[in-house]
Amino acid sequence: MSFRAIEWLDDRNTLKVIDQTVLPGETRYLHLETTAEIEAAIKSLTVRGAPAIGVAAAFGIVQLARQRIDEAPEDFRAAIAVCDRILRASRPTAVNLFWALDKMKAVWTGSGSNADVAAALRALAYEIEKDDIAVNRAISRHAMTITPQKVTFFHHCNTGSLATVDLGTALGIIRTAHESGREVFAYIDETRPRLQGAKLSSFEMMAFGVPHAIVVDGASAHIMRRQHVDMVVVGCDRVAANGDTANKIGTYNLALAARDNDVPFYVAAPTSTIDMATTNGDAIDIEERDGAEITQIDGVAVAPEGAPVYNPAFDVTPNRLITGIITERGIIAPPFTAALEKLMGSAS
Amino acid sequence: MSFRAIEWLDDRNTLKVIDQTVLPGETRYLHLETTAEIEAAIKSLTVRGAPAIGVAAAFGIVQLARQRIDEAPEDFRAAIAVCDRILRASRPTAVNLFWALDKMKAVWTGSGSNADVAAALRALAYEIEKDDIAVNRAISRHAMTITPQKVTFFHHCNTGSLATVDLGTALGIIRTAHESGREVFAYIDETRPRLQGAKLSSFEMMAFGVPHAIVVDGASAHIMRRQHVDMVVVGCDRVAANGDTANKIGTYNLALAARDNDVPFYVAAPTSTIDMATTNGDAIDIEERDGAEITQIDGVAVAPEGAPVYNPAFDVTPNRLITGIITERGIIAPPFTAALEKLMGSAS
Repeated sequence: MSFRAIEWLDDRNTLKVIDQTVLPGETRYLHLETTAEIEAAIKSLTVRGAPAIGVAAAFGIVQLARQRIDEAPEDFRAAIAVCDRILRASRPTAVNLFWALDKMKAVWTGSGSNADVAAALRALAYEIEKDDIAVNRAISRHAMTITPQKVTFFHHCNTGSLATVDLGTALGIIRTAHESGREVFAYIDETRPRLQGAKLSSFEMMAFGVPHAIVVDGASAHIMRRQHVDMVVVGCDRVAANGDTANKIGTYNLALAARDNDVPFYVAAPTSTIDMATTNGDAIDIEERDGAEITQIDGVAVAPEGAPVYNPAFDVTPNRLITGIITERGIIAPPFTAALEKLMGSAS
Repeated sequence: MSFRAIEWLDDRNTLKVIDQTVLPGETRYLHLETTAEIEAAIKSLTVRGAPAIGVAAAFGIVQLARQRIDEAPEDFRAAIAVCDRILRASRPTAVNLFWALDKMKAVWTGSGSNADVAAALRALAYEIEKDDIAVNRAISRHAMTITPQKVTFFHHCNTGSLATVDLGTALGIIRTAHESGREVFAYIDETRPRLQGAKLSSFEMMAFGVPHAIVVDGASAHIMRRQHVDMVVVGCDRVAANGDTANKIGTYNLALAARDNDVPFYVAAPTSTIDMATTNGDAIDIEERDGAEITQIDGVAVAPEGAPVYNPAFDVTPNRLITGIITERGIIAPPFTAALEKLMGSAS
């Protein structure tokens, strides 16, 4: 069994996506035909996961370029610039979106005919997509060097096939450990408010036959104290130059639970999520989302009508709580400022 | 506006309760006529909150005694003993249940006619009920001595009028601070899986006009870091002799968030929740509840069908993370073993 969260249908100039807002109850595919549709899909979390968002945005640029290819060169490039701005504004925290759009921008701001530019954009988007798969595989390969034969993981949010092009980052590590013959158990926290853990990660773990249990977010410290957990693995939306890591709300709490119980805490991070231009976590813009994500669950009210809500979508885990950052180029350990500088300075 | 979570209707020998499983959408009262109905109400969280459960169980004994008053003395007492056993088995973690039933047991195992015993049980249950109100007021009064004029609280679960006979413990402190003219704001975490924070505490805060915001459980550390929180106040289900405190799942995580951000962490604890017979938190039995509490929210499935779940209802916050325990006899500070010994050794 395999999932394709996003698939570029080249003949139709369409981005096909699984609607992650209706999983696991329903497997519904959407065909995104316009920049507005891709923007809406990213904003609504129909397409989600930092790596997947980056790839979706790249194909969004390809789509728009091909739609406007017959226009005058300056109109063509102006239209792409608008598309770029719209997609950049869709979500603020995950850096892969900006990383992918920056790579694309280097092409569409360069020289060449409309056709040349469109072809180069298409080739680059495919490359970004292909790279994501290779990167995820490399992350899992490195992670296996520190994964025992019998291992209990704790995981937050969804970082699997649904969050990436394939395999995933942190959830990819859990799946790879299972498929390598290790004796794996995973605690999957539900991850309020959007329940990506309960809805998506459990769905993937069931599909791949990985023994696991869904738990509430608040149970992590208790489970680490009374049960046994060997390692926490999480993904990330942005790693600052000092190793501070923005990820789905609740990650900082989970890191504190791990630290208090001497459980190693690992961040699975494609280097595309490492943002050397952001000095530390305090500088990371944290998206605040609609309060209805908290007060309504699948349309059912779970709070008094009109109740006030505060809904930050991400938090920042301080570098001091992180045992290691697992990238496609290897695993780095503290002190992260030096380690990241060395890692990112090396040829990419 | 006031709530009575439980009300003993003496003429009808009936315990009237608000059905807390349907709040805030619906205000429905149930009349509990039998031990089995009271047991079911406690198990299902129709009646909940450690102090409220204790009072409900006490009136459960009164009810049964009056129903069986015409039986032979040994049958009468045997029937009460069965009722006592059933109510004791309804929930394992909160100690108030056992505390109240122990007080009642001293009466029904003592001498006297059936009528004498029934009358004494009734008087004692009323006393336990009345004491709860006085205890909560005293806790709030002591708490005001450490509450600044402008104060932002963080609160977990529901510890208000709905969890007690009136006012509440930790939520009573917040309400009292508001009513005393302080400038109060409260972050109310939703408290998965049963959402007592979003459903019940927000409902009470709205009714009393206390400015607040509902947040997801995983947001506590982020909020303490990026916003401002002056103090965390939580209730408890059992305090061990060393100060380790069992409370709703997620409390331990919240205490870690507070510690990491230098936010004082206070436990509001009637002395009826202090269990000197339990040496430390590791000895506290933690209730595990039905996984459907996690996979279904108000009947809506939020996880794949058949997904495995682990659902501990409480956790234990280590004494080292607690700034102070606010009881009706005053606020105690670490080291808690000595402080609790002194507090509980004093006349009650």
